[in-house]
Amino acid sequence: MTTAERESATLALDGTGLARAIRAEVAATAAELSQRGRTPKLAVVVATDDESSAWYVRSIAKTAAKANIDCEVVDLGADCSPAQVRDALDSLSADDSVHGIILQTPLPAGARFEELASAIAPDKDVDGANPVSLGLLAAGSRAFAPATAAAVLELLDHHEVPLAGRDCVVVGRSNVVGKPAAQLLLRRDATVTICHRHTADLARFTSGADVLVVAVGRPGLIGAAHVREGSVVIDVGTNPTADGGLVGDVDEPAVAGRVAGLSPVPGGVGPVTTALLLRHTAAAAARAST
Amino acid sequence: MTTAERESATLALDGTGLARAIRAEVAATAAELSQRGRTPKLAVVVATDDESSAWYVRSIAKTAAKANIDCEVVDLGADCSPAQVRDALDSLSADDSVHGIILQTPLPAGARFEELASAIAPDKDVDGANPVSLGLLAAGSRAFAPATAAAVLELLDHHEVPLAGRDCVVVGRSNVVGKPAAQLLLRRDATVTICHRHTADLARFTSGADVLVVAVGRPGLIGAAHVREGSVVIDVGTNPTADGGLVGDVDEPAVAGRVAGLSPVPGGVGPVTTALLLRHTAAAAARAST
Repeated sequence: MTTAERESATLALDGTGLARAIRAEVAATAAELSQRGRTPKLAVVVATDDESSAWYVRSIAKTAAKANIDCEVVDLGADCSPAQVRDALDSLSADDSVHGIILQTPLPAGARFEELASAIAPDKDVDGANPVSLGLLAAGSRAFAPATAAAVLELLDHHEVPLAGRDCVVVGRSNVVGKPAAQLLLRRDATVTICHRHTADLARFTSGADVLVVAVGRPGLIGAAHVREGSVVIDVGTNPTADGGLVGDVDEPAVAGRVAGLSPVPGGVGPVTTALLLRHTAAAAARAST
Repeated sequence: MTTAERESATLALDGTGLARAIRAEVAATAAELSQRGRTPKLAVVVATDDESSAWYVRSIAKTAAKANIDCEVVDLGADCSPAQVRDALDSLSADDSVHGIILQTPLPAGARFEELASAIAPDKDVDGANPVSLGLLAAGSRAFAPATAAAVLELLDHHEVPLAGRDCVVVGRSNVVGKPAAQLLLRRDATVTICHRHTADLARFTSGADVLVVAVGRPGLIGAAHVREGSVVIDVGTNPTADGGLVGDVDEPAVAGRVAGLSPVPGGVGPVTTALLLRHTAAAAARAST
């Protein structure tokens, strides 16, 4: 087999087409809700002057507008106090015109994300940030999963990757990706291993995985020795490069040809995440209006 | 090495001595709280005529009394409705004289445990039954862990079993044991794998484990081929035998001599669980009185 042939054996698990389909579905739902006088509305609370956060918020607002969803950015500035953030979340939670609420990071010094996020009403918690949502999710009850974790599953399902009884390994244990992704995979009857920085021999676990989900934020973390031949790898990492680009946690050239599928960065999990935030918002609005 | 020598190499991870020490500590705390007019009180809600449940409730009440903790059994009978259970939990949650609340299983037909348990006030949820507690636990916030899951960790700590960076495998994914035990091990920086009935090749995962926690409820599930030499095994299973005894999920004679430590059934996790329920109740009372 030539290198070209081997490389062609790895399917790029594209997320852009999937995201487009989700956005079209959301736009239709949102238009219908609008006609009934209930335009879905997403509120984004920002308490930072971080440039990449601002870029992300602008991208959400633009995508929301195209999907017939109102987006209100509540910019508290980088100098606000944790109490001000909590007050903003409280009043948005109480506001009937708002259906979805997300809290942007980074937060002001001294603020704890989980503590503040607990002020987001669970039925408006479209990014699964409130620990209550994580608990409901773990208990198998209805709750919004963090959009990034949900995007991992959406991408796997879209590309028809079987999960029940399969060996799934998640690298990273954050509350926003690793832990909820593990919960979602467990709900789908996968055997789930969670690895992290204290894992002594990462390759020992990852090289046996049928499905590998990597959400660490370290370029090149996953090389050829870390993956099983014929496995599927979802790369959640988004690491900025010197030239203004973006790379994931997986050394793409190293694993190409060896794995059966790999989600690209950019264009994999990212666009699906934003589309799911909007889907969650439309779903919250649909529930609120019934 | 003779068989006797090999068997003597396996340490029985006794829970009775540990439970006694915890109860003594709790009794002292509770006595002190009583002097301040705040005797810790545990309420046990029963909605079943199941005999083994009744036996367990009597055992809790007896143990509580010895530890200076009041125990109120609210017996609603097996014919009560889910709504009556919820009402009982609501009023106990609002009752200032009650510091801990547990909901016994089995429940009446049509009742969902997680749904009812969500009526237990989180600060009185001494058996971590409310999904909110599971979420707080997963998010690293303060919450009571389910007593059985906490007992697993307590037993491991008591016997000084290192966890950080170790390969820990949990068999069983219930909301009351498997999932929270996995969360607690993850918080302690272990690499954690969760196996269950859909796991294709159980031994593949368990035979590599440094620490194996088994909480399934199937006698003989874990044999010699499932354990790593020198590993530590915590057996959470409690399966009644024909002669009125109790066995765990681990085939004890088969693994004896092979593993470094094994918690016995009975006398391992069980007594520690009850002791921790009381410790949680005393802790809840201490917080309420400050």
